[in-house]
Amino acid sequence: MTQRGQGMAADIAEQPGGFARLLDGEHAGAIAAVAAEVARRKPRNVVFVARGTSDHAALYGAYLTEIRLGLPVASASPSAITLFGARPTFTDTLVVGVSQSGGSPDLTGVLQVARETGGLTLAVTNNPDSPLARAAEFSIDVAAGHERAVAATKTYTAELLALLLLIEGIRSGDGSLPDDERAALDKLPQLAEDALADRTADDLAQRYRFASRLVTTGRGYAYPTAREAALKLMETSYLPALAFSGADLLHGPLAMTDPDVPVLAVVGDGPGGQSMRDVVTRLGERRADVVTIGATDVPGAAGRLPVPELTDERYSALLDILPLQKLALALALARGEDPDAPRGLKKVTTTL
Amino acid sequence: MTQRGQGMAADIAEQPGGFARLLDGEHAGAIAAVAAEVARRKPRNVVFVARGTSDHAALYGAYLTEIRLGLPVASASPSAITLFGARPTFTDTLVVGVSQSGGSPDLTGVLQVARETGGLTLAVTNNPDSPLARAAEFSIDVAAGHERAVAATKTYTAELLALLLLIEGIRSGDGSLPDDERAALDKLPQLAEDALADRTADDLAQRYRFASRLVTTGRGYAYPTAREAALKLMETSYLPALAFSGADLLHGPLAMTDPDVPVLAVVGDGPGGQSMRDVVTRLGERRADVVTIGATDVPGAAGRLPVPELTDERYSALLDILPLQKLALALALARGEDPDAPRGLKKVTTTL
Repeated sequence: MTQRGQGMAADIAEQPGGFARLLDGEHAGAIAAVAAEVARRKPRNVVFVARGTSDHAALYGAYLTEIRLGLPVASASPSAITLFGARPTFTDTLVVGVSQSGGSPDLTGVLQVARETGGLTLAVTNNPDSPLARAAEFSIDVAAGHERAVAATKTYTAELLALLLLIEGIRSGDGSLPDDERAALDKLPQLAEDALADRTADDLAQRYRFASRLVTTGRGYAYPTAREAALKLMETSYLPALAFSGADLLHGPLAMTDPDVPVLAVVGDGPGGQSMRDVVTRLGERRADVVTIGATDVPGAAGRLPVPELTDERYSALLDILPLQKLALALALARGEDPDAPRGLKKVTTTL
Repeated sequence: MTQRGQGMAADIAEQPGGFARLLDGEHAGAIAAVAAEVARRKPRNVVFVARGTSDHAALYGAYLTEIRLGLPVASASPSAITLFGARPTFTDTLVVGVSQSGGSPDLTGVLQVARETGGLTLAVTNNPDSPLARAAEFSIDVAAGHERAVAATKTYTAELLALLLLIEGIRSGDGSLPDDERAALDKLPQLAEDALADRTADDLAQRYRFASRLVTTGRGYAYPTAREAALKLMETSYLPALAFSGADLLHGPLAMTDPDVPVLAVVGDGPGGQSMRDVVTRLGERRADVVTIGATDVPGAAGRLPVPELTDERYSALLDILPLQKLALALALARGEDPDAPRGLKKVTTTL
């Protein structure tokens, strides 16, 4: 008999190895070849389509596209195409479908329409034989291996790294990475090991054992982390977790925070993190219980989930989520739930 | 001394009049002139920037753009530009800033960058003298009048109608509306009166008096309604309300639903609503307590907030939110809160 949560724990533990695998010659080379071809075709804008956890990876890809490539990013609504028959023209557009299983018919439908109307289509999946991968002109295998738990963890971080390699490869023009970029990325597997070795998340799970709701927040590269952390906590602990960009939080949801609502705030050391410090101050004025995720302590916060220091906020999304995945797992177990098989969920969701 | 919630109640009641005002010659004519100019410049894609309630109006504009204009829609991240220094090129792009106050520096910053880099910029605001309106090449006044409560209601529906008039005017090519479209829109003020006359929302507030969380869901044109309803409930009743597209709900958050989590599902009679019926069935399997918003009863739902029947799902966003605004108001009062002045919130939020 297997222990509860063993599958999710094993998935989480495999992430440093997953980073190393994607960075090796074979996989990084395959991504570089796609990046070079995309760069050659010079798309004028990029559309991401994804759902659930993969949509958070796509959001990271969107920030990278805007900031590193200077291209506008669109987020096509599958329902506009699959339900309402919209036929946007995708000329000069790179359309990227991100999906762990590659099995969602609505995403495949969008890629088919995009390909028919002149779009450059790319599937980023953990299953290179999936309908999504077959529908797209190009396909990137995130090579995370079989995921045991229903809640996605290692496929998420593999999607993040694949998108980072892709976009930096497009930026360089020929798929290759500058030496300093490559050197920074080569440190990722060890940094991920270090982040996972920390035990603070297990203690924090005790603190949230009887919480009835939770807020997560972050800005820029850290916003996808806030969204994904909220989803993980909902999926495994059934804890209603609301994710907000730090800016949006001040626009209304702030009213909802009080000392009974724990807040998890991703606060890095770059520009996004700097702007989050003001948000933490405003939360403090409302006497919210704030725990930050980051490399340095933030005034006004009650605690911190530590992650290794980074040279560039751009890489933070790949590490900040790790203690939060551990927190979701530990909290589910503390609450007597089985994080490997959340009630009512299936691994492949087939919305039309 | 004024009564609690009087301001929000007055704002809500003014919406039929607001629709009529926007549809009159002067305002509709001004929007048609902008639409004609936008159509002449033939943008190849559209970017919306907005926050909070206005972001939900922008989301409605995004669906209209994709479905009615067949143009890809982007959702630029202000933080990418204002914090990370991204300089995307906005050539051939219509960049629409939507803001009730027109006072958010981050949105104004995006419009400035867009204008400098060749974008066609448009502000949709309730304040034609605002920084946002001045930063944009074109400006549309949603003419909703002074909003008394901090929680936006009448400015939201005015933004929705202004965006509908704009996009249908771009579609026609010269800013004008086809006769059948105009006839359908002319019925809106009376339909809004009818929707607001219904008292079901007041009874429903009693049912949710002791709810500790809530889920809202919808698809297509109804998804902005689900998002806005959740925000209104959070702002006024401090009730953690999670909004999901019907498709995303099945991807993970479904695990969180159980008989203790009330679900508000927007289920119209068009394609979006049809696909939501399956979502209601799945929620029923999890014994969730589902109340629908729509013109017809849905099997498996415990109740329904009625709205008048419409000829086209496209118009539903303008009416479906009305009983939900009333619900937010009534629930705040039932819980002893003052919906006119939510704790910790300001009318103009000045994120950089």
